[in-house]
Amino acid sequence: MEPEVEQKQSRTLAESISEGSVSAARKIMLAMHPAEIADALESLPPVQRRVLWNISDPEIDGEILMEVGDEVRESLVRDMDLEELVAATEQLDLDDLADFVQSLPEQLTAEVLAGMGRQDRERLEQVLAFPEDSAGGLMNMDVITVRGDVTLDVVLRYLRRRGEMPKQTDRLWVVDRYGRYLGELSLRLLLTHSTDTLVSDISLRRIEPLLAHTTQREVARTFEDFDLVSAPVVDDNNRLIGRITIDDVVDVIREEAEQSVMSMAGLNKEDDIFAPIFKSSRKRALWLGVNLLTALLASWVIAQFEGTLERVVTLAVLMSVVPSMGGIAGSQTLTLVIRGQALNQINKNNLRDLLTREVAIGLLNGVLWAVIMAALVWLWFGDKQIGMIIGAALIVNLVTAAYAGAMLPMIMKRLGIDPALAGGVALTTITDVVGLVAFLGLATLIL
Amino acid sequence: MEPEVEQKQSRTLAESISEGSVSAARKIMLAMHPAEIADALESLPPVQRRVLWNISDPEIDGEILMEVGDEVRESLVRDMDLEELVAATEQLDLDDLADFVQSLPEQLTAEVLAGMGRQDRERLEQVLAFPEDSAGGLMNMDVITVRGDVTLDVVLRYLRRRGEMPKQTDRLWVVDRYGRYLGELSLRLLLTHSTDTLVSDISLRRIEPLLAHTTQREVARTFEDFDLVSAPVVDDNNRLIGRITIDDVVDVIREEAEQSVMSMAGLNKEDDIFAPIFKSSRKRALWLGVNLLTALLASWVIAQFEGTLERVVTLAVLMSVVPSMGGIAGSQTLTLVIRGQALNQINKNNLRDLLTREVAIGLLNGVLWAVIMAALVWLWFGDKQIGMIIGAALIVNLVTAAYAGAMLPMIMKRLGIDPALAGGVALTTITDVVGLVAFLGLATLIL
Repeated sequence: MEPEVEQKQSRTLAESISEGSVSAARKIMLAMHPAEIADALESLPPVQRRVLWNISDPEIDGEILMEVGDEVRESLVRDMDLEELVAATEQLDLDDLADFVQSLPEQLTAEVLAGMGRQDRERLEQVLAFPEDSAGGLMNMDVITVRGDVTLDVVLRYLRRRGEMPKQTDRLWVVDRYGRYLGELSLRLLLTHSTDTLVSDISLRRIEPLLAHTTQREVARTFEDFDLVSAPVVDDNNRLIGRITIDDVVDVIREEAEQSVMSMAGLNKEDDIFAPIFKSSRKRALWLGVNLLTALLASWVIAQFEGTLERVVTLAVLMSVVPSMGGIAGSQTLTLVIRGQALNQINKNNLRDLLTREVAIGLLNGVLWAVIMAALVWLWFGDKQIGMIIGAALIVNLVTAAYAGAMLPMIMKRLGIDPALAGGVALTTITDVVGLVAFLGLATLIL
Repeated sequence: MEPEVEQKQSRTLAESISEGSVSAARKIMLAMHPAEIADALESLPPVQRRVLWNISDPEIDGEILMEVGDEVRESLVRDMDLEELVAATEQLDLDDLADFVQSLPEQLTAEVLAGMGRQDRERLEQVLAFPEDSAGGLMNMDVITVRGDVTLDVVLRYLRRRGEMPKQTDRLWVVDRYGRYLGELSLRLLLTHSTDTLVSDISLRRIEPLLAHTTQREVARTFEDFDLVSAPVVDDNNRLIGRITIDDVVDVIREEAEQSVMSMAGLNKEDDIFAPIFKSSRKRALWLGVNLLTALLASWVIAQFEGTLERVVTLAVLMSVVPSMGGIAGSQTLTLVIRGQALNQINKNNLRDLLTREVAIGLLNGVLWAVIMAALVWLWFGDKQIGMIIGAALIVNLVTAAYAGAMLPMIMKRLGIDPALAGGVALTTITDVVGLVAFLGLATLIL
């Protein structure tokens, strides 16, 4: 089941656009949330997308831009002039603004920064100093701080005088007179304790504050493990410099998950499904090229056995089965281990256990499918010998696949290569070569 | 960079366990959060896992059980007696409890239910009436409701008298005298407006309340689009029956993402990396069997061209290149379209645009790699004809791959099959067969 209402909405929107009835489209958009308009934009081909973007409400352009992928954003920004861009930045939270500015072409970045007010620019530059994927890059500076030695009554009066609180404020931060982080005071406790309680009596320190250079993956894990809505960020001197909120963490989680699926196919999570055809072709060609190299390597291996293939053409008919089964078995182990790494389940202590286990599974499945394949080949070609050969090759390849599937992610991680990106190709290269050499090599020796 | 501290903690824990120093392990665990202990349990081989589980603090057993995967949970529950199980359930939120009870073996479920207090059981049965993956299955019943016609002062006094608020309470729910949902009052507004304001003056209705049968995917989208911390759930008569909180939604997002990666390799997100070897072998064998069928189909196709292969053994050397490139190109389109479906980016209106685009990219890359391959084959084997043949076959197969990659997820979705699970196999079956028939067929006709 899909969100029917929303789908229908964006469908009618798309319909009004393609029918050219701009006023109808405008009316529909009024009822839509920026995130929904962003979805609609992403699902429109270039021409219609431009039409929709031109009629969208400038008041929410900034928010819409934050919701679309990098590549779509580029295509939208290209249609905006500087004034529109600066106006759009004014709607954004500091962390979103930093992401946005970083995704602009360099020359535009400088212009947008120059167009901003001084205070905003200084705050922005502070966030820009941290890597985009660190706690510092994710944080906002909209912290509300209180001191520990006042009563809740003082805090309540302060809040009411202060007026509006930033979104996702579920707790206030307790700091000392130097701005150093001491603990947190949740609104829940503030509302349920008697007003003459001291802040320090009910403030807590549930988690250690996040250091600004903590990675976003670690930030996400902390939020998930402790079910946080917001978390404090401190500098190296333990001074509170900002807070991270769950909505940004949800985006991190979603993006990391998408990236791991997309990178397995050599794609990028920010890819626009309606990017210019030449641009997409060029990007994908690279991945095809890498894979052509492994296919050619396999061909080269086969070529070493040309003589045997000429004698026994049945081998040519069957030779793709062994590499293919190895690839599948290996990718099962690979996927499991990559996930185990992401969840911190794998370490020096259990690596041997894991390896033993995977190789044992490879052996069991190797024997199972070896027997089945041998029987099938015997039935199909009436040739017991080739049946035995393919069976033996399957066992060799499935055990190799298990070993490679478990070790590759470890080795890649140590070398700083993303196993989700390169693991699959590396694995199939190994299973192709080992499978072909085992099958054709045994055949050459025996037949 | 990984969360070093945590890793180190669970490593020392694992070390103390394997060294048999139970008291050291106990001491380390005292400083750990249930989620961290769950990670440690998941990363331990069976024997050590049982040791750790036996010494873990019964007070948090329930929370730990909620954090581990289904398969690991089963292995832990097997070591608990009924009394321990009932004690564990007492620590859980209603929605977690429902998930937990549903994951128990059937006969245990009845016993655990019987061991619970009557009120708890009745509430639990209400949640159990909804599918696990619906808003009703995700919700808790710990809502705090207020009426619209009272002042904030009344609300504040009510909250203080009431005491403790449930976790993740960022807003109260405004209902009429029949318990029908009217709107929400955020704690932020409650704290910043003057105490004589009427609730109805500042209460909002940002989103439509979620119906109990809304799917969890739709719930997650609503939370993401509107940056929610909690959302109301109503029955068909608009009566407020519970609320969903962001921590549970984060779990949904994480799980869906994991599932899509795992199912591509025929695995399940709940799989335990240290499940018994036979059990894992059996599960994975099924996927290998499915893939063997497609490999055998490819072999059968090759067998139809045995005569040609016997004449020109070079074809055998090269024939795996065409299916392999088709598989890669197709999986790029497939991945993009499956993601587009998940993000609701694809609908009837843009399907034709998308298809045209993908086929055009396939054609462009087909031509590119056809020229390269033709040249390579000419250089390698000095055979212009085979070069032309493999080039033509590549173009045919890459265009087919694009078409299949775009259409398969559409067709599968209509048939109620998960494209992430079955799309890859179906696609490679097509690209294998089409690639081989194109290459060997053309060769048979021309050579």
